Formats: sequence, C-alpha cells, structure tokens
Amino acid sequence: MSRKITVAAAQVGAVHKDASKPETVQRLIKLLHEAAEKKVQLVVYPECTLTTFFPRHFIESREELDTYFEHGADITQSPDVKPLFDEAKAQGIDICIGYAERTPDGSGYNTSVYYSASAGKVISKYRKVHLPGRVEPFEDPNATNQLEKRYFKPGDLGFKAFRAPGLKTDGKGDPIMGMLICNDRRWPEAWRVYTLQGAEILMFGYNTGSHMSHLWGGTSMSPEEQEQEALFHSRLVQQANSYMHACFSISSARCGVDDGKYDLIGGSSIVSPEGHVIAEAKTKEDELIVAEIDVAECRKGKERTFDYARHRRVEAYGVITVQTGIVEPELL
Amino acid sequence: MSRKITVAAAQVGAVHKDASKPETVQRLIKLLHEAAEKKVQLVVYPECTLTTFFPRHFIESREELDTYFEHGADITQSPDVKPLFDEAKAQGIDICIGYAERTPDGSGYNTSVYYSASAGKVISKYRKVHLPGRVEPFEDPNATNQLEKRYFKPGDLGFKAFRAPGLKTDGKGDPIMGMLICNDRRWPEAWRVYTLQGAEILMFGYNTGSHMSHLWGGTSMSPEEQEQEALFHSRLVQQANSYMHACFSISSARCGVDDGKYDLIGGSSIVSPEGHVIAEAKTKEDELIVAEIDVAECRKGKERTFDYARHRRVEAYGVITVQTGIVEPELL
Repeated sequence: MSRKITVAAAQVGAVHKDASKPETVQRLIKLLHEAAEKKVQLVVYPECTLTTFFPRHFIESREELDTYFEHGADITQSPDVKPLFDEAKAQGIDICIGYAERTPDGSGYNTSVYYSASAGKVISKYRKVHLPGRVEPFEDPNATNQLEKRYFKPGDLGFKAFRAPGLKTDGKGDPIMGMLICNDRRWPEAWRVYTLQGAEILMFGYNTGSHMSHLWGGTSMSPEEQEQEALFHSRLVQQANSYMHACFSISSARCGVDDGKYDLIGGSSIVSPEGHVIAEAKTKEDELIVAEIDVAECRKGKERTFDYARHRRVEAYGVITVQTGIVEPELL
Repeated sequence: MSRKITVAAAQVGAVHKDASKPETVQRLIKLLHEAAEKKVQLVVYPECTLTTFFPRHFIESREELDTYFEHGADITQSPDVKPLFDEAKAQGIDICIGYAERTPDGSGYNTSVYYSASAGKVISKYRKVHLPGRVEPFEDPNATNQLEKRYFKPGDLGFKAFRAPGLKTDGKGDPIMGMLICNDRRWPEAWRVYTLQGAEILMFGYNTGSHMSHLWGGTSMSPEEQEQEALFHSRLVQQANSYMHACFSISSARCGVDDGKYDLIGGSSIVSPEGHVIAEAKTKEDELIVAEIDVAECRKGKERTFDYARHRRVEAYGVITVQTGIVEPELL
C-alpha cells in the first residue's frame, strides 16, 4: 500500500546582519504561500532561520547577542514570528523551523520545532546535539568564526521521534519523523537513534560555509573548489545516511552571501531511502523545492538490508555509547 | 609530517563452483607479484576469496559444504593456501584476505585475517559481524539464495583495531587498521567502533550481486540499472563512511560472472578520509589497483569536523547499544 504525502524544503537565501526579523518572516510566509499553491503538507525551513548566522561573529555584548535569540517558552507567540505560525495554521501546512532559543534560565540552544497545523501548536522540539566550532574566537581578525560552542549548550532533549497527528498520508498510518540540525547530519549516531524508533522522514536545516577551509590551516583549493567540496560532503552524508537508515530526508539551506562576504552553500534537497536525490535546489536564494514522496518506500530498506532486528549486533557496539573520544590500541 | 605508504586492492574475477583452490591461489599470487613490482606494502583481497561465493547455493551435504571452508587453527598452514602466505613473506608484503573458517567445534565464520610479512604470521583475525541473507533457502528454485545466516555464525571477535609491526610509513608511526567484511560496510556502527580506536585504514572485501532485486519482490529496473544501483550503494557507503569516520578505506571485490549466471559487481576502490575515490577498478576481472596514500591526511577530519572527543555526545546515543530492532514511539 502506498502512503503518499507532498513535502517541501523552503530554502532561504542571504539574511544580512542588520536584516529586520519581521521582513525575514515575510519571506518565509511567501514561501509558505507557494507551498500552499502546490498542495504541500509539510515545509522544512533552515537552521537559525530568523536571523543571519550569528555564530560566525564574536559578539561580546549579551544585549546584542540576545537580539538573535527567541525568548519565551512558546515561539508561536513570539511577536515577530507569530504571523508565520498563524499562516501555517490557516493554510493547514505543518512546518519545521530552526531558531536560536534562549531559555528562562539564560541557556542558549540551537533549536528546531515541529508545528502541527491541525494541532495548532508545537508538538515536538529538538535541540542540536552536535555543536561544531569552538568556544574561543580566532585570533586572526579576518578569519570567519564558528562559535556555536560558545553561544549554545549541547541539546538536552535527545533524539525523540514523533508522529504528527494531522500529517495524513493517503494510506494507512502517519509517518514517523525526527529533526536534526546541520552538523548532526554528519553523525550517523543521530540518524540511528531516530531510525531505531522507526523514523521514516528526517528533517534538517543547515548553515554551511562555502569557503571555510582557511580556518583549518589553509587549502590549495580555489573558492569554487571549496564550495564544490562542501556541497559534495553535504550531499554525501545526506544520501548515505538516508540509505543506511532507510528513511527519507528533507534538508533546507540558509544560503547565499550574507553581508557581501559570508558565502553559504545551497543544495537543499529531498532524498529517498535508497539514497537518491529526488529534488534539489537550483539557486542559492529563497526557493521552494517540492516532492511527492511515498513513505511506504522505506519498507524496502527497513525489511531487507537494514532490518535492524535481524541484522544489528549490539554486543559488538559497546564503545559507541560509553567512550566519547579515541582510545588507541596498545602498540604491538 | 607526511606518513606515506603504498597500498593495493587485489580484485578477483569469476571463481566458478568447480574451480580448483590451488589454481585460484595461483591467481592471487600473480596479483601479489604485480604488487611487488609496484612496491606495494599491503594487498587487500576479497571476502571468501578462495572459492566461489557458495552462500548463494543451498548445500545440504555437510561434506560438500566443508570443501568451501578452511579447517585448522592456522590458515597459513592450510596446504592449498600456504603458497600465498609464503610468497607474501618472501616479497615482504602484508596481506588481508577473506575466507570461510570452520573451527574445531564445527562452527562456521566468514573470516578475514591480516598477515604481517615481517612478523611472519597472522596478527589479527576478524569474523564478519553483520551477516546478510537468510537461514532458509527460497522456495523458488530459480532465485539466487543468500544463505550466510545458515552457514555462518555472527562474528564473535568484535571490531579490534591493530597496528602492523612492519607496515612502516615514511613518517612517524604505523597506521592503525581494522577489517570489515562486505555487508559490514553498510553499518556505520562497525566503522565507528574501529575509529573510536583511532583506525586510519579500514579494509574490506565483498561479494555483491549485480542483479539481486528479484529476490525482494521484483523490480522495474533493467539488469544494467540494477548493477548501477548496486554499485551506487556500494560506493556511497564506502565514500560516506570514510568521510564520517575520517579514515582511508580499501575495498576489494570478488566480481564477474560465476558459472555463467551469477553476476557480481566490481568497483574495488581506495577512498580518502575526505570521501573521494583515489583509485578504482576498471574491470570485473582479476585487477590490482594501487595508490600511495598519506595516512596523515586522516588528521584533518580527526582533529576538526570529526574530533570525537570534542563533538560526540554519548548521553544521546543510549539506544544504539541496548536496542537491536525498532521500537516505535507511542501514537500521539
């Protein structure tokens, strides 16, 4: 039996440092209207969608830093962002969106929520587990920083799969879903924890620099080659993890050139459980990519090559959950 | 500092059901001589290199089945295979080779050994953990079986990384290595356990059918498309896992058409820690592919994006080692 639904990634182009949040939200709503015209049931927005990707900046003022965060327990009531959720509800479209979250105790998280249009509320929240980058800024004032480890705590909500009550497929059963954020996509542990819960669709946004190689001791690659390499890695992990975990994936890029100098890759895509790209963004600007997917196609992988119950051997995996870093074997 | 060594995959073409084991071993020795001419230090042979891939056959006679296995505690003393190890020692080339192992207690394993030429002995043994296929043969007499779960027990030696005492790089330190076998390459857990031990080179052989889709409920793909799909998946997981685990990988195919009807993919390859194919087989016959690799290139991944100590969050991975199959979330 087929279980078809229509899904989209809403890629978002340049968002400059001084961008107005209400104006950015209007861009998101425009993409949502396009989705409504195309009968889309679920739209996935990027990571930290509402502002420029501020972890590239070393911001010492807490007051300034806080302008990039959403405060308050319920993002759907955040004045600048509420119009997006209201419109999602009006259009009957579920959305997954990333933002910087400041909790009442002052902690920062790189967060995504899943808003169910039929429930009229956020039904799942995820906080990014695999924070890349560093705590301290680079000494070189020309280097592009990546300060997620400074501004955010590692996510404390785990990887909790869920079903959206209103996201009906045309067959029996709603899809089981999960959220990742950016760098998480490079960590198969994250995909495995979700798919051990039967996840059929994983969603993630990302902000991935096109020319980050200079941060790490230089490169002989041209800027164009660096961008191709970053795109290659992004596609490679999405395709391989979709295949090895027998699930669809929907990825959405914050991309383009922020402030005339910070270039982010595009490549938003929808990938099948066999690892094939079904739809992919053609631009590095605001762009909606849409696909009708048949969630039943996950069964092939889940019941055969990747039938966990028959093939996984947890007795051989022990160190994965007890050992964080490398412990080399003794020299022979 | 660079740490260069020259490595090879010795791909092996068709091996028919009635092939003579001494003749097959002579083919392996011929590839070893080519490796010696090219100053290769390590040759990786396929999975179950010494015979046809017998798990495709339903063999009821234990006596017949045992002809496909190596018996005795030390494969280097197995009369048919000893000439290969003797030649490896004479040439000073380390080899990794897969074979079917029958233990004294009658158990069967799908095994690989690492033979160190300088030590003059096997210094590491691996038994395949992720056995694909089924215990029972198909009812359809025209179907190609995959009976590894019938003939082999899951490997009981874990994933133990090791250093080869004589495999000198031209810089400081010998590479840390590990062995996988065929289907293991599709399971990131296996790569992770090895690379949590610092593994820099993973080696594996495989027997992967070109046209297996008919086993699983039919396909609309042509035979050529099926072979391309099988190759696509094989490359995808090798490239992505090499990247996500920041290690080189060397894969070696048993390939070609066995007995005029069982078609296996080629695609033996050497892949960099950035996920790029450095060398790849051009044929589906006996073929040596060679590359000089710089093991120091693993540092980029191991110290940056995939610096496990800084980025892994084991508190979020718990189910990976305690739960074998899928447990779906409760319905909302």
